[in-house]
Amino acid sequence: MRKITLSETATLLSENDNFHILTHRYPDGDTLGSAFALCFALRTLGKNANVKISGKLPSKFSYLTENYCEQEFDCDYVVSVDVAAPSLLGELQEHYGDKIDLCIDHHGSNSMVADNICVDASCAAASEIIYVLIKAMNVEITRDIANAIYTGISTDTGCFCYTNTTAQSHHIAAELIDLGCDFSMINRINFETKTRAKLKMERMVYDTMEFYCGGKCAIIYTTLAMQKALGAGDDEMEGLASIPRQIEGVKMGITMREKEDGTFKVSVRTNDGINASEFCARFGGGGHVAASGCSIKGDLATAKYMLIKAAEEVL
Amino acid sequence: MRKITLSETATLLSENDNFHILTHRYPDGDTLGSAFALCFALRTLGKNANVKISGKLPSKFSYLTENYCEQEFDCDYVVSVDVAAPSLLGELQEHYGDKIDLCIDHHGSNSMVADNICVDASCAAASEIIYVLIKAMNVEITRDIANAIYTGISTDTGCFCYTNTTAQSHHIAAELIDLGCDFSMINRINFETKTRAKLKMERMVYDTMEFYCGGKCAIIYTTLAMQKALGAGDDEMEGLASIPRQIEGVKMGITMREKEDGTFKVSVRTNDGINASEFCARFGGGGHVAASGCSIKGDLATAKYMLIKAAEEVL
Repeated sequence: MRKITLSETATLLSENDNFHILTHRYPDGDTLGSAFALCFALRTLGKNANVKISGKLPSKFSYLTENYCEQEFDCDYVVSVDVAAPSLLGELQEHYGDKIDLCIDHHGSNSMVADNICVDASCAAASEIIYVLIKAMNVEITRDIANAIYTGISTDTGCFCYTNTTAQSHHIAAELIDLGCDFSMINRINFETKTRAKLKMERMVYDTMEFYCGGKCAIIYTTLAMQKALGAGDDEMEGLASIPRQIEGVKMGITMREKEDGTFKVSVRTNDGINASEFCARFGGGGHVAASGCSIKGDLATAKYMLIKAAEEVL
Repeated sequence: MRKITLSETATLLSENDNFHILTHRYPDGDTLGSAFALCFALRTLGKNANVKISGKLPSKFSYLTENYCEQEFDCDYVVSVDVAAPSLLGELQEHYGDKIDLCIDHHGSNSMVADNICVDASCAAASEIIYVLIKAMNVEITRDIANAIYTGISTDTGCFCYTNTTAQSHHIAAELIDLGCDFSMINRINFETKTRAKLKMERMVYDTMEFYCGGKCAIIYTTLAMQKALGAGDDEMEGLASIPRQIEGVKMGITMREKEDGTFKVSVRTNDGINASEFCARFGGGGHVAASGCSIKGDLATAKYMLIKAAEEVL
């Protein structure tokens, strides 16, 4: 394991030829955007590259794969993008867990096991790092690459809204727009479209909202039964995590989502410098200062009790 | 009345000394951001300048006036910013309606009466034009100016999400961030904060949602009684207009808001090139292709019927 710079990373990518690029589980816009942008760029250089998605591609991101087909080749170089910890590889962990040659990430808390680790926590999105690497490799940014990078940056910054947004995020977005990236379509899909099922899910979730710590902590949850009642799939569940933090006075917004495996997937969003990553580390998770996650095994009441107790200690 | 270029506009601003800068009624982030940015810039040049707000400054924008005090002087030059039509001057129309020396705006439908009219419809926000003018006048962009311009651009683009966003919008945002603009605070106030009253208002509004034209038109409304029941002020009412267009399949989202004067303020948001401005022109209003407004006199049922009939003709 060695930490390497961006330019060393670009060199490693240039020197190898047959890539598998891994996303994290519950793949989001940044891990997918990073993976497909890098994949398209490597193919432009005449290399073989496939994206290995942990889990299923959410249907709303299908535009990323319009010009993508799996290639046939023997992989000899494995790259993970936007994967902060080995467990986040999900279903890919068993096969690839001990074979990762290069980890590219923007999470300060990165704890991946890989031969080479390139982490730049100053980037709002892993896709920003991919942009820099693609530039360093002198690959022309095609429309597909532009769409993928824009997807990563825009989704990880909440469309340039969150505090992690930087001048660099905007500079890259400006260039991608000039290069013909279809930001209108991408924004509409990611930020401006709700299915009626999602609308119903939001309303149901509002009904679960409870406040603790004198209004500084808000908790919402979804159960499998709620999802089933509304016919809501993964697409309808996305974005719910941003709801509780938005309420005036809330410093920590917690979203609990019951999963099929008997755990709750917990998303924590914070304001005013409250450290969500440290909070989630108590439960074996991690992420960013203002946005982190973890999983808790147990029934709703127990998991909620554990989270509230921990929140009371922090707030 | 003559149409003038940006550089002619910068010259006019440089040649005059005692300004009143007018906003439109129901002042939003762009008209306020434009007005205060221009005001601060003119003051930097040693000129006298006051902002004349049509209506009340929404409390959430109070950060714009932290370093602003009214000056005492005799006004001899009147500038309107982001005001698309005379009627939109609201309470300022009577005093200033026939005295406007310079109109600065980004609405293609601009129908203002003024000696000089500078309209650049390629700009996502009037604040982008103000940015260009400030640069042309060689005024250093202070933190207050940066915050004001960022407020205008970010609010008029839905935080760089709407289709009106351009590479220029991002380039300016990047520079403003480099200049120390407090985008985190501004975004949190404008895009990430909901009062509990607003949350309740949204839930109540969801209950009013009806679909027409085979799901292509969605209508929501608020009444004075609903506002009163929730103790919701103007702050709670903002942003509701974006709700109906977000629903999957909706091409025209209409939001009706009952006002004290017996009219409904109507906001129309469209997708897929449906012309909201033309639609609103039927009712004496106007605006942008994808976002326009008008007022309709009458009770809820009648006003809604008129809107649905018109929507059926368009969709």
